[in-house]
Parts: sequence; structure tokens; C-alpha cells
Amino acid sequence: MDFMKPETVLDLNNIRNALVRMEESIVFALIERSQFYSSPSVYEPKKYIPNFDGSMLDWFLLQVERTHSQVRRYEAPDESPFFPDDLLPVILPSIEYPKILAKYSDEINVNDEIKQFYINDIVPRVSCKDGEQLENLGSVSCADIDCLQVISRRIHFGKFVAESKFQNDKETYTQLIKNKDVEGIDASITNKAVEDKILERLIVKAEGYGTDPSLRYSQNKQSKVDPKVIAQLYKDYIIPLTKKVEVEYLMRRLEDDL
Amino acid sequence: MDFMKPETVLDLNNIRNALVRMEESIVFALIERSQFYSSPSVYEPKKYIPNFDGSMLDWFLLQVERTHSQVRRYEAPDESPFFPDDLLPVILPSIEYPKILAKYSDEINVNDEIKQFYINDIVPRVSCKDGEQLENLGSVSCADIDCLQVISRRIHFGKFVAESKFQNDKETYTQLIKNKDVEGIDASITNKAVEDKILERLIVKAEGYGTDPSLRYSQNKQSKVDPKVIAQLYKDYIIPLTKKVEVEYLMRRLEDDL
Repeated sequence: MDFMKPETVLDLNNIRNALVRMEESIVFALIERSQFYSSPSVYEPKKYIPNFDGSMLDWFLLQVERTHSQVRRYEAPDESPFFPDDLLPVILPSIEYPKILAKYSDEINVNDEIKQFYINDIVPRVSCKDGEQLENLGSVSCADIDCLQVISRRIHFGKFVAESKFQNDKETYTQLIKNKDVEGIDASITNKAVEDKILERLIVKAEGYGTDPSLRYSQNKQSKVDPKVIAQLYKDYIIPLTKKVEVEYLMRRLEDDL
Repeated sequence: MDFMKPETVLDLNNIRNALVRMEESIVFALIERSQFYSSPSVYEPKKYIPNFDGSMLDWFLLQVERTHSQVRRYEAPDESPFFPDDLLPVILPSIEYPKILAKYSDEINVNDEIKQFYINDIVPRVSCKDGEQLENLGSVSCADIDCLQVISRRIHFGKFVAESKFQNDKETYTQLIKNKDVEGIDASITNKAVEDKILERLIVKAEGYGTDPSLRYSQNKQSKVDPKVIAQLYKDYIIPLTKKVEVEYLMRRLEDDL
């Protein structure tokens, strides 16, 4: 995926390959998180960090985003910050990205929802044990941030899918948008067969990457994360939120004559 | 591994399991790095960051370590900073770790060597392509930092191996140390059969985790990193440097009557 070449970014085949590759990153990140306890105190506001209203995870994620913003992470069209109002000025020369997405694209940001489902529903199911292990709070936060950033990137990639679909059939989408036909747009971007295929592939990947292959023929080849949990994560959250991003993006698409 | 319980930390079986599990983290991190170009400019001092003498990677790693130090990463006996002189005060309540390692243990730090071999010999062999892709410099640095931190943790784990071996045979080691018998100590910590086994297992893991398992029967199931490169990384650097850490640790062991 080369963001300097818009035509490659909007090629649905390239988008698909990028999404398939992100599955690896998501599975790896969740496997790394699975080494630690659920650690609910990390997500509790005002628990650990003096003079800060958020949780320890919020504080840590904010520091990470401030550092990353300085080396222009959030100039990239495929990156969406969790704390867009608290970033720092870029210290590298800016990159002049060609315009690929509509001008309002940065306003579409579902990171708050991502953080909620991740904390409430994913952490308890991937962590190795319920409870706290106080000496690992920092490691837990690091692992969480890796998970959140790659899940966020995956979901907001819906913008490229949406733009690509719009470009490929401007007439149909213009009509659907003019009719405010949310259901029609949702139907047009839904492909149940493709979604089922993703879930099947995730089960295989989670098993493959979560099991020590040198123990393949052993009695004790337990997967580090339950592959069903990863498939469920996609089914319940990643796929629906990606579609939400796509619909939001498309519904406003006539605001920009890109 | 529970650092609050010294007896579990110095159990060689637990150490071995922790080292085996770190292989996953190292392989995952290198696979993630393999998505990007070699990007030599990231490692060039004074290239990108104004008023900073190091490289962009140095700057980024320093920011990361400063944040991590605040949530007490470097209080943990298994973590060694790359910039020990530039850390920030801890903002969480300190953890009272039981004394597991000798008092001089923090002085044993081979991170400069780790950074050198990683940049000079690993990056060119795991990156997907030689050259620069200016819009990915930040992603490259992030991936590098993940690799460096986990490789550093793996190598400095030699301190636990060394302490455990010392505890298990104080008499022999005391004699070797008094005789300044570096070669004798090196021989006592070397087990060629175990090393060969590690290299074999790494080949299998790098293949398993580097290949999309849903393509297992496809013509085009290319591994994302060359498994031989990962085995070579262990053979040429990780194993010898771990032993260097063990020898340095043991040679000074009579300074502490722990």
C-alpha cells in the first residue's frame, strides 16, 4: 500500500491484501496481551496517575500518541488518534500526501467505541487470568496499546474501502446518498460470503500463530488465545464498526467533489 | 515468571519456559518489521531530529524509555534501558521487588552492542526491501523498538540463568571466580545440545508464524522472514551475548554475598 500513489490505495485488491495482512498484526498483538492478567485497575480512571482524570491506559496511550504525533503518525491517512486534541506539533518535515480521502475523513473516528469494547469484552477473554499483577501494569498497558492501535487502523481502513466503492459506482452511491438510504448503503457494502471467509481464516490463523509449532504433535499444544474469541472479535466488533465507518464516510460523500 | 517470588525466578525450568516464550515475541516483532523497507536514514545521527545528536531511532527510543520509566519499567529486574542516564522519575508507587540478583546487576548492560548488530546485520536481512520509504519512518522506528526491547530482555535474562547456576553450585563457581577462569565459566554455562535445539525450534517457529496458515497448501506460501535469518540471529548474537552477560555477572559474583 503506497499512500503516495492514490490509484494503488483505492485498488480494492490492494486494500484487501492490506486488511488480510493486518489480521496477522492483530492476532500477534492479542497473543502478546494474553501473557498478562486482565488487570482491571489499568482501566480505572484516577487510579494510578496523579493529576490526571483518565485511567493508566489513557495516560500511557496519550504519551505514546504525543510522541508518535511528533514524527507525523497522524498525518498518514490510515492513522486515527485516540486523543486528537492533545497531540504535539510535527518535528519532521511534513509529507505532502496526495488527496485520497474526502476532506471530512478525519472527523470520522470510532476510537472511543474501540476502546470500550476492547476493555470490556476483549481483555477479559484474551488475558491468561482474571485479576491483578501489580508489577505488570506497564507491560499490560504496552500490550493494550499495540492491540488498540492495530485494531483502530483496521477499522478506519473502511474509509479506503468506502472511497474505492464510491469511485467505482458514483451513480448508484450518489442516488443512495441523496435518498439518505442508510440501509441501501449498508446493503451495498455487505458481502456475507466475504465476511464468513474472514472468520474462517481467522480461526486458522489464531490456531497457527497461537500454538508453538515445535509442539505440533504434542499432547499439550494449547493455543495461547482461543481462536473463537478472535473470530468473535471480528464478527461482533471489527466488521460492524468497519461498516459503520464506511457508511458514515459514504453518507457525507457529496460534501466533497474529490 | 513471578518476580515477587525469587524461588520461582531462579528455577531453571521456569527460566527456560520464559526464554522459549520470548522466542514467539522476537519472531512476531521481526515479522512486523519485515513489512517495511530497510530505511537506513532512520539510523543516521543528526538526520531528522533538530537539536538532537542521535538518530531518529535514538530519539524515538529515548521518548519511549522516558514514558516507560515513569511507570517503573526499569525497576523490574528483567528490563534494561538503552538510555539509563536519561530516564524520568517513577510516578506510580514503587514495587518492592525481593532481591534476586546481585547488587551490581544493573551495571551489566549490553544494549549498545544489541543496537549495533540489530541495525547493521538484522535490519538489512529482515526488511522487505532495501531503501527508504519516507512516509514510513515512524512505523519503522516503532517496529525497531519492539524488536530491540524484546531482544534486550532475552539477552539480559542471562543474569537469572547465571544466578541460578551459581546458587546451584556455589563451590565450583567460587573456585572458578577466584581463579579468574573466564574460559572455565564459559564452558560451565555452555550446552551445545541445548543451543542446537533452540536453533532447530526457531526455524520451525519462524516458518510457522511467518506463513499464512490459510495458504498452507498454496503454491505461494512464502515466509515473511527467512527462518534461517532468525536462527542466525540467535546463533551469531543472541546466544553469544547472553553468555557474555552470564560470564560478566558470574565473574563479579563474589562482590555480593546475597
